[in-house]
Amino acid sequence: MAEDKKPTPVSALGEFGLIDKLTADFVPVNSSTIKAVGDDAAVVGYGGEKMVISTDLLVEGIHFDLAYTPLKHLGYKSVVVNLSDIYAMNAEPKQITVSIAISSRFTVEALEELYAGIKLACSKYQVDLVGGDTTSSLTGLIISVTAIGEAEESALTYRSGARVGDLVCVSGDLGAAYLGLQILEREKRIYLEHPDVQPELENASYLLERQLKPEARRDVIHFFKEVGLKPTAMMDLSDGLSSDILHICKQSGTGCEIDEAAIPIAEEAYHMALQFNMDPTTCALNGGEDYELLFTIEPEDETKLTGEFSFSIVGRITEKASGYHLISKAGHRHALKAQGWSHFLPAAE
Amino acid sequence: MAEDKKPTPVSALGEFGLIDKLTADFVPVNSSTIKAVGDDAAVVGYGGEKMVISTDLLVEGIHFDLAYTPLKHLGYKSVVVNLSDIYAMNAEPKQITVSIAISSRFTVEALEELYAGIKLACSKYQVDLVGGDTTSSLTGLIISVTAIGEAEESALTYRSGARVGDLVCVSGDLGAAYLGLQILEREKRIYLEHPDVQPELENASYLLERQLKPEARRDVIHFFKEVGLKPTAMMDLSDGLSSDILHICKQSGTGCEIDEAAIPIAEEAYHMALQFNMDPTTCALNGGEDYELLFTIEPEDETKLTGEFSFSIVGRITEKASGYHLISKAGHRHALKAQGWSHFLPAAE
Repeated sequence: MAEDKKPTPVSALGEFGLIDKLTADFVPVNSSTIKAVGDDAAVVGYGGEKMVISTDLLVEGIHFDLAYTPLKHLGYKSVVVNLSDIYAMNAEPKQITVSIAISSRFTVEALEELYAGIKLACSKYQVDLVGGDTTSSLTGLIISVTAIGEAEESALTYRSGARVGDLVCVSGDLGAAYLGLQILEREKRIYLEHPDVQPELENASYLLERQLKPEARRDVIHFFKEVGLKPTAMMDLSDGLSSDILHICKQSGTGCEIDEAAIPIAEEAYHMALQFNMDPTTCALNGGEDYELLFTIEPEDETKLTGEFSFSIVGRITEKASGYHLISKAGHRHALKAQGWSHFLPAAE
Repeated sequence: MAEDKKPTPVSALGEFGLIDKLTADFVPVNSSTIKAVGDDAAVVGYGGEKMVISTDLLVEGIHFDLAYTPLKHLGYKSVVVNLSDIYAMNAEPKQITVSIAISSRFTVEALEELYAGIKLACSKYQVDLVGGDTTSSLTGLIISVTAIGEAEESALTYRSGARVGDLVCVSGDLGAAYLGLQILEREKRIYLEHPDVQPELENASYLLERQLKPEARRDVIHFFKEVGLKPTAMMDLSDGLSSDILHICKQSGTGCEIDEAAIPIAEEAYHMALQFNMDPTTCALNGGEDYELLFTIEPEDETKLTGEFSFSIVGRITEKASGYHLISKAGHRHALKAQGWSHFLPAAE
């Protein structure tokens, strides 16, 4: 943003002028993108492949706090979390639509920052922005992203495909994004009470990046293709391992056992959890927003999980009747409960 | 809704329970719907046809007022306005995703009303609900709908196809939805001042229905197919004729002349406009939310516009250099300006 320019109110451009301005730089890269922004609807085409569609609604004050979230990061993350859903189907995202509602405190320059982040994500993941809606809100920023991807039908991985005896696996490590959020919330509280205190963000860069600028695991999907591995079930870890594995179990009609000792936790996350007097395992199980892939494989496929990626086998699929359990490091069995992100607090408004 | 039941807070169900409950009754009807609600993403498939995608974001207090909008009507309208965009491409909608954000004042029963309207629209227009997101908001209801349709590429009508000499046509009549809104706003004001006064809704049923329960012109698209007519350009009238024809002209690189005398206005709308001391033509030009189709045809296709439907030829496409004009009933030329719905008021928050 030019620093010598006065902020431009959105009303100076009007709705259509705003869309034109924000989307002018988005150039389609996919051959399946036939008509992008600018008509009643976008047009996409696939030669016999299947289309995969996912949508998310992000609300200021619920899903993000602009006190510590740069708009460019927010734009980037809004796209990435949707692409993560497409990869979780073992599909390749190709297009997105982005709708935003804004209150009058947002200037054109602020929205350009948001769209710069959206564009960065589009460019990194090679997806085309093909449509959207821009309108106003009474209270804050609302972002709705729909992602469209493609896949051969035979490649698709559903949540319902896990079978008894399958291994439960995750990519990367868990809990870091949640701890990044705890740091940001702590610094916000300190800042509000003592605006002169400098933020303590040492040793936190990995955790903050996991929270503010997560990546979707496209690399993992490509690796699966390379080594000829098709998970029996897959989803992305947005709500936390304990909540998300229950989705797979319920849709597959199975139970599961998760080994606490096998849950991958980054060293930075482990130490930060202790600093917050939190149990690192609880952060990894219930933190959410990791955007890693949770998947199940047949035991004979275990040998394919080698090479450049870090995968962890965190448990196994069991009979439905045996329930859902966490085996603690001490060997005790605990019932596994969904304690993921809940945006429905009992008394909010 | 059972009247002897206490309202259920959303927190009693949780996010996933809520989605399950709200979407349990939606049964896919389209063969291209391969996987609907319940996974990371929906899966749809087309055999060589093109896909058409449109999305809208509706915000309480900006796009609708729950003081006079029944939730079932709102659900119906939220879907219909998106389908209208798909028909405006000369395509057939097949799937929708619906995301909602709600504040804690909404009960499960209220959301069931909303989804009853969504379901009614799905059933009437034969579209499948294939996904969505349900989350909370701090202030009110937010609805985001994405519609997905299909069409042969050669059948698609873009805004950019109008050519000099083409006739400008609209289906149905214009301005009624806007006048319906004026009535509802008037009755709300009266009610707030005098809660004991009964609403005056006589002779208003057509206008109220156009505002509260609009329909998308699927019948017109089917008629085009039947008589072998392909408009050169088309869009749906959501912002008002004066604003929307400018989109077609700008994207087609043309000018236009609109004949005031030819603009179709229903008798109820005409009389209600006078009752409000408004110019009926202004209501028809700038009112918006008619969801009729605005399209251009080659002059030799005029004879095809017969039969059961009411179409009006309201003007013609001219050279770009001659500009955009309204020819008044008295024969005067006025510059045509976009004065459609603007949700960006200069000082809102």
